[in-house]
Amino acid sequence: MEFSFFLPTRVVSGEGAVRREGHLLSALGETCLIVTGRSAAKQSGALSDVLAVLEKEEITAVVYDQVMQNPLVSTCREAGEMAMEIGADFMIGIGGGSPLDAAKAACVFATNAISDEELFSGDWGSRPLPLVAVGTTAGTGSEVTRIAVLTTDGEGKKRSISADSIFPVIAYVDPRYTHSLPMSITMSTALDALSHAAEGYFSSRSDAINDAMMLPAIASLENSLRALDRLDGEPVPKELRSDLFYASVLAGFSLNKCGTGYCHPLGYVLTEDFGVPHGLACAIFLPS
Amino acid sequence: MEFSFFLPTRVVSGEGAVRREGHLLSALGETCLIVTGRSAAKQSGALSDVLAVLEKEEITAVVYDQVMQNPLVSTCREAGEMAMEIGADFMIGIGGGSPLDAAKAACVFATNAISDEELFSGDWGSRPLPLVAVGTTAGTGSEVTRIAVLTTDGEGKKRSISADSIFPVIAYVDPRYTHSLPMSITMSTALDALSHAAEGYFSSRSDAINDAMMLPAIASLENSLRALDRLDGEPVPKELRSDLFYASVLAGFSLNKCGTGYCHPLGYVLTEDFGVPHGLACAIFLPS
Repeated sequence: MEFSFFLPTRVVSGEGAVRREGHLLSALGETCLIVTGRSAAKQSGALSDVLAVLEKEEITAVVYDQVMQNPLVSTCREAGEMAMEIGADFMIGIGGGSPLDAAKAACVFATNAISDEELFSGDWGSRPLPLVAVGTTAGTGSEVTRIAVLTTDGEGKKRSISADSIFPVIAYVDPRYTHSLPMSITMSTALDALSHAAEGYFSSRSDAINDAMMLPAIASLENSLRALDRLDGEPVPKELRSDLFYASVLAGFSLNKCGTGYCHPLGYVLTEDFGVPHGLACAIFLPS
Repeated sequence: MEFSFFLPTRVVSGEGAVRREGHLLSALGETCLIVTGRSAAKQSGALSDVLAVLEKEEITAVVYDQVMQNPLVSTCREAGEMAMEIGADFMIGIGGGSPLDAAKAACVFATNAISDEELFSGDWGSRPLPLVAVGTTAGTGSEVTRIAVLTTDGEGKKRSISADSIFPVIAYVDPRYTHSLPMSITMSTALDALSHAAEGYFSSRSDAINDAMMLPAIASLENSLRALDRLDGEPVPKELRSDLFYASVLAGFSLNKCGTGYCHPLGYVLTEDFGVPHGLACAIFLPS
């Protein structure tokens, strides 16, 4: 049952996690840049929790809220340069996969004056800023990965960066932030998480510990997806939201070791060329 | 399925792990103290692998090999002071639970001039030296824990320290180092690992991710213990050694979150007062 393991992110879970464990942030420095999208961080309540904690810990914060779906490299660069300007000691990414992945690349740009090509080559001279991840969707698992998927300017192609130095140092997982998500996003992100867990479990790179973690993730996501399907337009119960979020984080663990299988690369084509949401685009290929 | 998670140790596994991944050590500094017992590190081949890698990476090393079974606080202090004298940037602990736990406490003493009482209070001003753990028994799981169990001078009582800052930064897990262990130690340490996994699984502090990891650990250890029992004096096959080692590391993960149940405190009494080996002493209470 040989296995290897490296998952340095501290996962802090439960309702009220940010306010309860906000003291952890003070060890990271005195100034931070918050990287997020235009609305989810505010609607979910995550941004106000984070701002309240930063005030209490006397940490100066600036908000960059220009991250769009499928974030462009130029957006990440802009956020990184803003972090450099304000002398940020660390970043806090708030949102779904797009803001969190953008924040990872921004952490690289904040300490490295490099070209886009150098970003993707992984040839960074300096260690990226530490990143704290506050997830607001139950799907990407980006809170606990060393990976960021970006979209190139001009060509609009998906490319990724991957390094131990962009693992978030802390991931706050509070299921309340997912309560306001519409059903379409809830379903698409849950399918994304199921793709991660299933592709991970069947990966040739999986090992005893990855198998052990993916089995309950798959079982939980399957149950949750069936329950979502049965809701028939009713609001998503709180416990179901909670199960979906934790299972998506667990599924995310697998991405670091196993990457994704054939569903994700095929799904990217649907997203890039036809605008199909990422989770749905991947899951279309899952049954086969 | 709520869970929390923090396990920053990088587990590097497989035959030849130290030599293959020895380059990781160069990031830790230029001088190190090796903390180990009188014989296991040499007999197992672990010490010579470590010394070869340190020479290749041009890291200066001094060996402290005075750690006995159930290490005394004064031993840890002596090792810590030696690290301070030579200006060590990090330590490498080689051995079973005793040398690894002693090395953890030595890492604290190396950066903190404190009394024994302050050691146990956790009131350390400075961050302990980083520790690399090279295990040579399949049982304690100390390679991946934030815990060190020590024996007080004079009274001879077991007391422990526990802190995130004493998690080993790297654990090299090479099953070959366990090949030369006698059957009595193999059996006792396997029972210790089974106690960790079972006590963890049944702990009220266990959660979805701990349960997921302990189930295969328990199943694997049960199979391995039955196989050991069937050997009837024959040498332990290589695959069985390997399974035992990996399962013991997996079982160790649980100690950080769940500690131990009632078996360990009861077992300490047998060890302290009657000299019963730790694993056996704990497992005696397991069936009830």
